[in-house]
Amino acid sequence: MKKVYLDNAATTPILPQIRETMLPYLGEAFGNPSCIHDWGDTAREGMEAARAQVAQLIGANAEEIIFTGSGTESNNFAVKGLALAQQNKGKHVVVSAIEHFSVLHSARTLEKWGFELSLVPVDKYGVVDPEDVRKSLKKDTVLVSIMHANGEAGTIEPIQEIARITKESNVVFHTDAIATTGTIPVDVKELGVDALSLAGNQFYGPKGVGALWVRKGVRIMPLLDGGVQEGGRRAGTENVPAIVGLGKAAELATTDMTARIEHLTQLRDRLLTELPARIDHVVVTGHPQNRLPGNASFCVEFIEGEAMLLLLNSQGVAVTSGSACTSKALKASHVLIAMGLSHALAQGSLLFSFGIDNTPEDVDYVLEVLPPIVDRLRQMSPLYAKFTKASKGGN
Amino acid sequence: MKKVYLDNAATTPILPQIRETMLPYLGEAFGNPSCIHDWGDTAREGMEAARAQVAQLIGANAEEIIFTGSGTESNNFAVKGLALAQQNKGKHVVVSAIEHFSVLHSARTLEKWGFELSLVPVDKYGVVDPEDVRKSLKKDTVLVSIMHANGEAGTIEPIQEIARITKESNVVFHTDAIATTGTIPVDVKELGVDALSLAGNQFYGPKGVGALWVRKGVRIMPLLDGGVQEGGRRAGTENVPAIVGLGKAAELATTDMTARIEHLTQLRDRLLTELPARIDHVVVTGHPQNRLPGNASFCVEFIEGEAMLLLLNSQGVAVTSGSACTSKALKASHVLIAMGLSHALAQGSLLFSFGIDNTPEDVDYVLEVLPPIVDRLRQMSPLYAKFTKASKGGN
Repeated sequence: MKKVYLDNAATTPILPQIRETMLPYLGEAFGNPSCIHDWGDTAREGMEAARAQVAQLIGANAEEIIFTGSGTESNNFAVKGLALAQQNKGKHVVVSAIEHFSVLHSARTLEKWGFELSLVPVDKYGVVDPEDVRKSLKKDTVLVSIMHANGEAGTIEPIQEIARITKESNVVFHTDAIATTGTIPVDVKELGVDALSLAGNQFYGPKGVGALWVRKGVRIMPLLDGGVQEGGRRAGTENVPAIVGLGKAAELATTDMTARIEHLTQLRDRLLTELPARIDHVVVTGHPQNRLPGNASFCVEFIEGEAMLLLLNSQGVAVTSGSACTSKALKASHVLIAMGLSHALAQGSLLFSFGIDNTPEDVDYVLEVLPPIVDRLRQMSPLYAKFTKASKGGN
Repeated sequence: MKKVYLDNAATTPILPQIRETMLPYLGEAFGNPSCIHDWGDTAREGMEAARAQVAQLIGANAEEIIFTGSGTESNNFAVKGLALAQQNKGKHVVVSAIEHFSVLHSARTLEKWGFELSLVPVDKYGVVDPEDVRKSLKKDTVLVSIMHANGEAGTIEPIQEIARITKESNVVFHTDAIATTGTIPVDVKELGVDALSLAGNQFYGPKGVGALWVRKGVRIMPLLDGGVQEGGRRAGTENVPAIVGLGKAAELATTDMTARIEHLTQLRDRLLTELPARIDHVVVTGHPQNRLPGNASFCVEFIEGEAMLLLLNSQGVAVTSGSACTSKALKASHVLIAMGLSHALAQGSLLFSFGIDNTPEDVDYVLEVLPPIVDRLRQMSPLYAKFTKASKGGN
């Protein structure tokens, strides 16, 4: 059976040349970078080269990069650490309603710790209006966190415009750029943000590593206390093999980005156009233009997403309904609900996320196998029966 | 030049058979375990098999194992998470004076958050007296955290006796077993603790992975908020390759432990006996009997540890002065100070930590190269000159 992986938003495969770069650090070069001997030196040199590669990818200085254990850790560290470091100035934070749970639930934890939280809404495309951010600011606002792009809906947010507003008000601005870094151009100076999260397994690097960029001079409280690693800001023996892999992934993303974007955009646009042409009652979710190049997201009416996932999987196709981290929870996506979709419609969400190894044939295959799956499920759907009856009755 | 790695307390090499187990998960089996498709299933199965292996190593149930990104994260999670989950019951925590900084500094952070902290002292061998723990308990004590063994001094603590005391008082007891798990027998039921930290890179597994065992029914607040991974207790895409490696490391430790202990003990005892016989004014630190099988720790009088490290490294020998995480900080070890050593003596600390690949020839090599290094450094030492002058004057 053909196998088609279209769940790159959940995690990307590791590119062979990235894996090769990691292997020595899983072997002879196993040292602890904190140690003062040859083994430590080798590990430290590998790690610092990776730091420079990651810095180059996002237009930052290497000493501003803090390696973490995941994108989720980067977001927890940013939201909690930036807010707690400034709590003498104020205890109000602002995040959007469609943030990843690692931002949203960190903000909820801050609420338990006595902070006040404002949620900024989004429009039907999932776009944050910068003026809504302005309106949400108070005298005691110390942190705004708005994602660069939503991995689920694919929508890219107007980060530069929001940064102008936070700068005027002298409020620290963090962006979760986990869905964008390594995929589309991300330059911390152009974006104008103060802190930015990224993760290795979103652009063909390994799991178990992320990074948080924090502009020099911005204070942050550590999430992990202990040793003096990462300039005293993130304790714990560094995951050197994964860090080296992240560095290589950053290097490849820097050189190959334009070609990758072109390739992904072609695959995405073909599916965005063709799927609604072949299946009735399909809604494209997310912004029509400002969206991630590999993201084709839909809602299929009258069907539950999970049923489609299982039948697609039985045909060798891997996709997600909602986000990777919530698919097990089987709730309607908070992102789609915030975009104004009904619970019933949001339950039928289907996210195709392309990677650089996907081909036009993969799109053809989806267009071949999905329509009969939808037909089959709709024949069993009481909602669809009710709808068709009402439609006929209406004629 | 001969290369002798004697810094296994800082990190162990990854065994080849453990690396082999990891490789598929850095390749084809790259899926996200949260996903409902074949790629997700494969990753999840690998992860759950590893959870069972880790559980078996420590005599626990698999569902009580929470995977983390490092030993440091496990300790932060335990100390902060167990204390915060019980703060309605009380705000007093107890740790020993020789805990790893990931426990000690986490406890200091709790202090900033309004908790009261008591430090239990140790004797000259680094041993905690259980009666001191009993005396430190108050009505509002919610957490005791005492390490199973100190990686620096090598001393093994009387955890069972302490557990009896905390159980009588109904106080949650966490032990940092990072230096012991996979090295000496660790059984959570025998120890009688409620939570236990371990780390992969301490017993020939990879970096970037640790685990926290929490007894069923004991409440803990997440350190990393976000998705519902690890039963909602630790968010973030799981580092599957490292987790699988940790599982294999646990399996090998279970089968090979007796032989490993015998081998390490022989190397250790030879160095503990021979080094003081060949160099004057050398003090063995830590407990004479109850110590980690691979730990030979000393203080060399009249010399700074760092100078010895550098000269040993120039002879191909890797060791540590103080702990791995503080060697960059170049302060006297808080562990040795708590054991009553003077700052001057503690500055001359030297930790040899053996691994299963070390040989008797490695010990011979150290016994050959270290005495001339010590002689050379003492000839440049004003403290030593003062001492010898005083000794002569005394005759």
